[in-house]
Amino acid sequence: MGYSETNIEGRNAVTEALRAGKPIDKIYIQDGCQDGPIVTIKREAKKTDAIVKYVTKERLDQMSETGKHQGVIAVAAAYEYATVEDILDAARKKNEDPFLLLLDGVEDPHNLGAIIRTANLAGAHGVIIPKDRAVGLTPAVARTSAGALNYTPVARVTNLSRTMEDLKKEGLWFVCAAMDGTEMYDLNLTGPLGLVIGNEGSGVSRLVREHCDMIASIPMKGDIDSLNASVATGVLCYEVVRRRLGK
Amino acid sequence: MGYSETNIEGRNAVTEALRAGKPIDKIYIQDGCQDGPIVTIKREAKKTDAIVKYVTKERLDQMSETGKHQGVIAVAAAYEYATVEDILDAARKKNEDPFLLLLDGVEDPHNLGAIIRTANLAGAHGVIIPKDRAVGLTPAVARTSAGALNYTPVARVTNLSRTMEDLKKEGLWFVCAAMDGTEMYDLNLTGPLGLVIGNEGSGVSRLVREHCDMIASIPMKGDIDSLNASVATGVLCYEVVRRRLGK
Repeated sequence: MGYSETNIEGRNAVTEALRAGKPIDKIYIQDGCQDGPIVTIKREAKKTDAIVKYVTKERLDQMSETGKHQGVIAVAAAYEYATVEDILDAARKKNEDPFLLLLDGVEDPHNLGAIIRTANLAGAHGVIIPKDRAVGLTPAVARTSAGALNYTPVARVTNLSRTMEDLKKEGLWFVCAAMDGTEMYDLNLTGPLGLVIGNEGSGVSRLVREHCDMIASIPMKGDIDSLNASVATGVLCYEVVRRRLGK
Repeated sequence: MGYSETNIEGRNAVTEALRAGKPIDKIYIQDGCQDGPIVTIKREAKKTDAIVKYVTKERLDQMSETGKHQGVIAVAAAYEYATVEDILDAARKKNEDPFLLLLDGVEDPHNLGAIIRTANLAGAHGVIIPKDRAVGLTPAVARTSAGALNYTPVARVTNLSRTMEDLKKEGLWFVCAAMDGTEMYDLNLTGPLGLVIGNEGSGVSRLVREHCDMIASIPMKGDIDSLNASVATGVLCYEVVRRRLGK
């Protein structure tokens, strides 16, 4: 489990990695390089969220592990997902009631990153995301998580409702966030808990919602519809923190 | 006060608007246009956060107000800032204790947008930002605010600490967010209140901090340093909401 980075060196290797859709965080290009293959790499890089940086040949030589960088080194991100069991173990080790976040289709990498960051600071033991219709752990997510991805385990599951059924056998209760629920202050948010956050546009899906024991609403005083997904997650997480602290 | 959009039509007008740094939200370009001036517009647009969309000639004809779009129409954003007095008036009209957000150097437009969205839903009466060293109201901020910019007044001031001194005469108390403060549950957050949020990297500046009556900390259980600025604002705003609701 964990986030790591590896070098990809040389023009062909970097071009191929980009075309194959490998998650590239940064690409270092030698100052002044403007030939065809480099132009191709820059064009392919624009289609991704990789950051392109121009550096001196000396810098590239220092970074190079193969000695054959040909003016370009890409830094590829790799993340080994945790299992749901890993997350429950983390709670057991701390002798705490499990507190999990389940993201039902969060699509924006900045939201996912900010949510993992929040999960870490609010003392959640892990984050569960679905394999389909959701963003995975990309370099942009790692950046926005501000380092939290190195500490907070993220598991990816095929079927979120089935995972919830399994976790109910472990004693977890589930609360999802929706606008037509009970005001969050009036719910029992103590004990082993999974907090379910829906998609930015469409919210929590019907099936996942049916698997929830409670529906929590954040009080809304304003003129517009809803909070940003990562802000809503922060507000709900800290309502759980407040209860756990007995404040 | 308010957010509005106006058309800029024709190649020269759009190019000049981009070069002059006018806040352009979207640029509509006629399908198939690939000549020099259009390439220039696309290149200049990439330097901004404008969204480029390709549409049919018929669509452009419909959108055009001058009838002379030459294959390109840009939508420019304009925002008329509110005054601090407007914000206090908004509180008086609702017969509520003023609740203001003061942003001491927030730099990321997505954070500013999400904070305005949160201010709206948490029932804050307005947001105050400084003129220097901070992002202003750009199209990206308007988009991220999800419409809140049409409802929640934003004032821009030259000197944040002086504005705080003036507001203290109106009876406001100020609380800023920092890691070395008092846990937020143990502070009196009722009454006329200004919540001060600092810069994403460096936090609240020394002078502004000295003008605060209280320093609030969000409990942090994790391994990393701090929450995302808009998430932290959400958590603190909703702690104020909870107190105001007497929950």
